[in-house]
Amino acid sequence: MLDGIEFAAVVVSAIYGVLRAARKGLDVVGVIALALAVAFGGGTLRDLFLDRHPLFWIEHEHYLVIAFGIGLIGAAIPGRLARIEKLLALPDAIGLGLFSVVGAAVAVEAGASLPVAVLMGVVTGTFGGVIGDVICNEIPSLFRPSPLYATCSFVGAWVYLLLERTTLASGVAVGAGIAVTVVLRLVALKWNIHVPARKMP
Amino acid sequence: MLDGIEFAAVVVSAIYGVLRAARKGLDVVGVIALALAVAFGGGTLRDLFLDRHPLFWIEHEHYLVIAFGIGLIGAAIPGRLARIEKLLALPDAIGLGLFSVVGAAVAVEAGASLPVAVLMGVVTGTFGGVIGDVICNEIPSLFRPSPLYATCSFVGAWVYLLLERTTLASGVAVGAGIAVTVVLRLVALKWNIHVPARKMP
Amino acid sequence: MLDGIEFAAVVVSAIYGVLRAARKGLDVVGVIALALAVAFGGGTLRDLFLDRHPLFWIEHEHYLVIAFGIGLIGAAIPGRLARIEKLLALPDAIGLGLFSVVGAAVAVEAGASLPVAVLMGVVTGTFGGVIGDVICNEIPSLFRPSPLYATCSFVGAWVYLLLERTTLASGVAVGAGIAVTVVLRLVALKWNIHVPARKMP
Repeated sequence: MLDGIEFAAVVVSAIYGVLRAARKGLDVVGVIALALAVAFGGGTLRDLFLDRHPLFWIEHEHYLVIAFGIGLIGAAIPGRLARIEKLLALPDAIGLGLFSVVGAAVAVEAGASLPVAVLMGVVTGTFGGVIGDVICNEIPSLFRPSPLYATCSFVGAWVYLLLERTTLASGVAVGAGIAVTVVLRLVALKWNIHVPARKMP
Repeated sequence: MLDGIEFAAVVVSAIYGVLRAARKGLDVVGVIALALAVAFGGGTLRDLFLDRHPLFWIEHEHYLVIAFGIGLIGAAIPGRLARIEKLLALPDAIGLGLFSVVGAAVAVEAGASLPVAVLMGVVTGTFGGVIGDVICNEIPSLFRPSPLYATCSFVGAWVYLLLERTTLASGVAVGAGIAVTVVLRLVALKWNIHVPARKMP
Repeated sequence: MLDGIEFAAVVVSAIYGVLRAARKGLDVVGVIALALAVAFGGGTLRDLFLDRHPLFWIEHEHYLVIAFGIGLIGAAIPGRLARIEKLLALPDAIGLGLFSVVGAAVAVEAGASLPVAVLMGVVTGTFGGVIGDVICNEIPSLFRPSPLYATCSFVGAWVYLLLERTTLASGVAVGAGIAVTVVLRLVALKWNIHVPARKMP
């Protein structure tokens, strides 16, 4: 099941990367590179931190071909992309949810403790976006006042990890973790919910 | 002993990260993320380069909880932080000294040659700050004319590594390496000592 | 043979890093750091992704000393550098060609599939430059409309990998891959050839 969710996360994140790149006016190479960076960045960092080899996109090599293809197609049809751009928040939120739960689950499988597993969930969920921001030379939204993002991943990862320790079916924990992350993110965007920032006087 | 020094370096660097984030006006998530990035960035790179697993903050998992806690507390009391902000240079210099020596020592333990061990000292000492700068979208001070920084780490790592090969007690080498790095850094800041930069004509 | 090519790539890339740093007015520490980052960045990422240890610059430790020396000498003679700066494009193109083929070759040796090997070629060839750009706080040229760069690496890696499967001598595949990359890059610079960028309407 985790493999299926990871696959969905890769597809959704690659689409998000393409949309982001197209808006920025990148050329086809930039679009493909950003699609790959967003789709594989977080999971790669997780795998390197946990010493899991081969990396998930080397093990499942069709991921690479598919993300590449999404980048190529996306670069070819920017007009169509513009129409779905209003939906940009949706693949981003879904990717966040899928990767957060997969990241935490993989860490637990690799024997990580609870705090480490939560961090791996957040890293897997958010790092693709951080790389994308750094590449586009923006302060990562993770580090600017902006609607809840890492927080959603953090809460979702905890929900998954705690439910997973109960007698509930594993699918319930996975589903609940993803749903909590996605809904929290969409709610935060809708009502512009921030965590507090208190500048030093 | 190295474990104790590493622990101190993590605590001091997390505090430095919190101060830096608070000055930049980051929200609580940004403060925590920057505290973690500064505290764990350099050592993580060292461990990945040397293939040391589990990573030091996965092995000693209380590091993660403590750095997280420092970020959380720091984000809650920016007013108190302002009062110690003049001291910003101190935790930075101490963190640099502690991490430089730990980085070099760990590399030697892992069988690295002298030049590699020095580089690992410098990477461990300075990379947390570089990540912090990149995240805050600034040219890392490592790459701008600014008071000696990497140089202090470089000299301190050499002092440690050379003394460590003598018949002196290991503690002397460790202490001297740290002291040289910290004092050199504070002196460089005080008298604004730069390494020369010669622009191409 | 691959070792010799890798060595040449390190030397050429370190020189490129020095020229780039000198133009930016970095001090001697910055010059050395940029030389190391450009020379070792791509290959390090490749080795980490493929779990090859020790890293290539830890295994061949003279690389480190030589790149460091190039940085040190370069920082001392910016006047002489200015004279060869018109040649900046050449070490960059050659480094791109050498690292792209070495990257792909090492990946194949490590058992990677064709798409992964191509990506490793491109990562090894281009990532040093991307790190350099991020450090200098510029949008990496990989992600801006600019003459073909990653594309040259991509094509060159394919040429090498496909020829390598034929009955031709291995040296032919290596030479052809490098030559195609270098020539394509120089031609793209000369006639300012871009891949198309289509901004979303």
